[in-house]
Amino acid sequence: MPLAPLLADAAASDRARAVFDDIRRTRGSDYVNNIWRALANDPAQLEMTWAQVKQVMAPGALDPLTKELIYIAVSAVNNCAYCLHTHTHAARAKGMTDAMHAELLQVIALASQTNRLAIALQVPTDDRYRAPPACAPVRSRD
Amino acid sequence: MPLAPLLADAAASDRARAVFDDIRRTRGSDYVNNIWRALANDPAQLEMTWAQVKQVMAPGALDPLTKELIYIAVSAVNNCAYCLHTHTHAARAKGMTDAMHAELLQVIALASQTNRLAIALQVPTDDRYRAPPACAPVRSRD
Amino acid sequence: MPLAPLLADAAASDRARAVFDDIRRTRGSDYVNNIWRALANDPAQLEMTWAQVKQVMAPGALDPLTKELIYIAVSAVNNCAYCLHTHTHAARAKGMTDAMHAELLQVIALASQTNRLAIALQVPTDDRYRAPPACAPVRSRD
Amino acid sequence: MPLAPLLADAAASDRARAVFDDIRRTRGSDYVNNIWRALANDPAQLEMTWAQVKQVMAPGALDPLTKELIYIAVSAVNNCAYCLHTHTHAARAKGMTDAMHAELLQVIALASQTNRLAIALQVPTDDRYRAPPACAPVRSRD
Amino acid sequence: MPLAPLLADAAASDRARAVFDDIRRTRGSDYVNNIWRALANDPAQLEMTWAQVKQVMAPGALDPLTKELIYIAVSAVNNCAYCLHTHTHAARAKGMTDAMHAELLQVIALASQTNRLAIALQVPTDDRYRAPPACAPVRSRD
Amino acid sequence: MPLAPLLADAAASDRARAVFDDIRRTRGSDYVNNIWRALANDPAQLEMTWAQVKQVMAPGALDPLTKELIYIAVSAVNNCAYCLHTHTHAARAKGMTDAMHAELLQVIALASQTNRLAIALQVPTDDRYRAPPACAPVRSRD
Repeated sequence: MPLAPLLADAAASDRARAVFDDIRRTRGSDYVNNIWRALANDPAQLEMTWAQVKQVMAPGALDPLTKELIYIAVSAVNNCAYCLHTHTHAARAKGMTDAMHAELLQVIALASQTNRLAIALQVPTDDRYRAPPACAPVRSRD
Repeated sequence: MPLAPLLADAAASDRARAVFDDIRRTRGSDYVNNIWRALANDPAQLEMTWAQVKQVMAPGALDPLTKELIYIAVSAVNNCAYCLHTHTHAARAKGMTDAMHAELLQVIALASQTNRLAIALQVPTDDRYRAPPACAPVRSRD
Repeated sequence: MPLAPLLADAAASDRARAVFDDIRRTRGSDYVNNIWRALANDPAQLEMTWAQVKQVMAPGALDPLTKELIYIAVSAVNNCAYCLHTHTHAARAKGMTDAMHAELLQVIALASQTNRLAIALQVPTDDRYRAPPACAPVRSRD
Repeated sequence: MPLAPLLADAAASDRARAVFDDIRRTRGSDYVNNIWRALANDPAQLEMTWAQVKQVMAPGALDPLTKELIYIAVSAVNNCAYCLHTHTHAARAKGMTDAMHAELLQVIALASQTNRLAIALQVPTDDRYRAPPACAPVRSRD
Repeated sequence: MPLAPLLADAAASDRARAVFDDIRRTRGSDYVNNIWRALANDPAQLEMTWAQVKQVMAPGALDPLTKELIYIAVSAVNNCAYCLHTHTHAARAKGMTDAMHAELLQVIALASQTNRLAIALQVPTDDRYRAPPACAPVRSRD
Repeated sequence: MPLAPLLADAAASDRARAVFDDIRRTRGSDYVNNIWRALANDPAQLEMTWAQVKQVMAPGALDPLTKELIYIAVSAVNNCAYCLHTHTHAARAKGMTDAMHAELLQVIALASQTNRLAIALQVPTDDRYRAPPACAPVRSRD
């Protein structure tokens, strides 16, 4: 059961409906996901979150499918059932094959294991990895 | 401080040294990371983990850099400082640019936020995302 | 499905029933939540937990509603569906408005994001924040 | 060690420096925290995050100190050392007393325990808490 | 809803069916759990995971029931409903009494609380606990 | 850096010093750990936590070493460096051998991996594991 009502278009405020409309336009689909209908209870949060999704998930230095794979990895560790369902479907829609899904899960499983071993043993970072890697400001996006 | 000694080659068992040698051969480097020297206290775990790393991180349906990005995402959510240091360096070595790193962090930040909102509101999965996506056995790897 | 039976009054031990009675008295309601009926399988745990709830959630330097907001924040990050349901209702009962709920979620979403960025980048604590803030023993509670 | 350089003003891009200037103006202090200098490697993320902090942490239905308490609770469960240091100092600056800090920690400790018990026992949500609480759109913010 | 089909024997690849057969042989039961039928979509992952389960959960320096208790503790903190159900049943089958279950939950609840307090207060490790405890390589398993 | 001062005996309140004294008596050692000196800033929390530690970690249906192993498992998943250091030392003091430590870590690593796979695939609980296992009230402790 959701802890806030999932607002139908008629129940949403004008600000929320404007976001719904932009979601529909951007995605070329009439369907608006439950998460947006739940966030519509707070139009400020709805606007902020949708603006960030549009900006972050667009093609850039990483392609949209790679971004979905990263999204799934984060959602798996955060244990978000809703997000795993929607983003696994989104990744499929963007071309994730069975083999890619399998390898995504392999990396998630491996990292979950080695993360925990490194933590349980409190392994100190090697001196050679303590210096920050060469990394200049992301000027290409300015 | 590590909770088990980081075993130098001379202190490691024959089984552990054999894994160290394979790490050196596979990576074309004489350096063996602290995590392997910590795991060497248990040669069975060392062998299992190294075998899995070799199998999982090899090129496949996903390229090695994409796998490192996923590894970093998991390590960030699991809060593994050791893993974040070593795998951010590994991703750099495999070609991660500043722009790619920036977008990786953007997706991690976005998903962390939407995951938590979906959970805090207990948003139910949309009916259309409840059916498993078409997904056949990964026969190409048999 | 619960992993221990939810004990009805008739099935509970005398020690457990005494706690049920105190819950009823304290809350002025005949209803005893599922969590207490599950904990009743171990009267020692039931007593410890209920004693702590009574002590901690009482009015003090923080008012009971603020305490409920903090409880919800912890439950959201721990991903406890049961606790999110019961404490969101409790916060409503103690006066949480729609606007307060919305702002609570905004802070949870923001912190989830900045927490993850600080971790993923391993940002070191600023020198000026490393010294403990002025903080004397809580003598007023002695 | 940070995994991206902490950019001094001279090393930051124009977009990043504009955010630094707004941080200084808004806070009435010349000091810019390490997190902003790390995020400055990606001006897009820096702008998004700072805009969200300004909007979310401002006074509203919840006062700024209550928002800091919630921020600390989230950071404690996410185990973000950086965020715990900076936001515990921020809460002190906004009036958190020793007694308030003590009660904040009491609620975090209690919820951490009951969350885990409810999860370990898979306690089902009581029927009476399954219906969403009365909750209208947050029109007052439109 | 699972995000990959639960493969019946007839739908599984030869490699996957060979693992199913070994599970049946090892456990002396015809029943194959859902987790294996889900992992069967990726025979490589299925083989790795099953091999690790067989090796790790076998009697050794720790008896199988103690291993199940540890498994439950990890699953509770990771919030894995599937794993809590299957391993609580497995622990029961291996002799976990009501009293043992109760004490397991007591320790999980206590540690969840003290972990969070130590983190929220950023308590530094005592000097006397910083040196690694005496710990030689696990030669008895070579 | 701790976020509250570590109170020396002279700085602690009478209530806090009484707990310090009981810690010394119970453990037969003059040393009082940093966690207690940090909690001493809030005598109420100090008393509650120490009372719970004394009750929960005492011998019962599970022996004290098994309880320490469970404590370490929880601390590893919660990523509590302080707790991992102190409880790994405590487990050593109570008889944890190198082989036992190795197997503890093996189970933690395995469960971390299978937990994440079950979650990422949203594997549904098998019907046969949905019924609660036979479990009567823990009368022996009444």
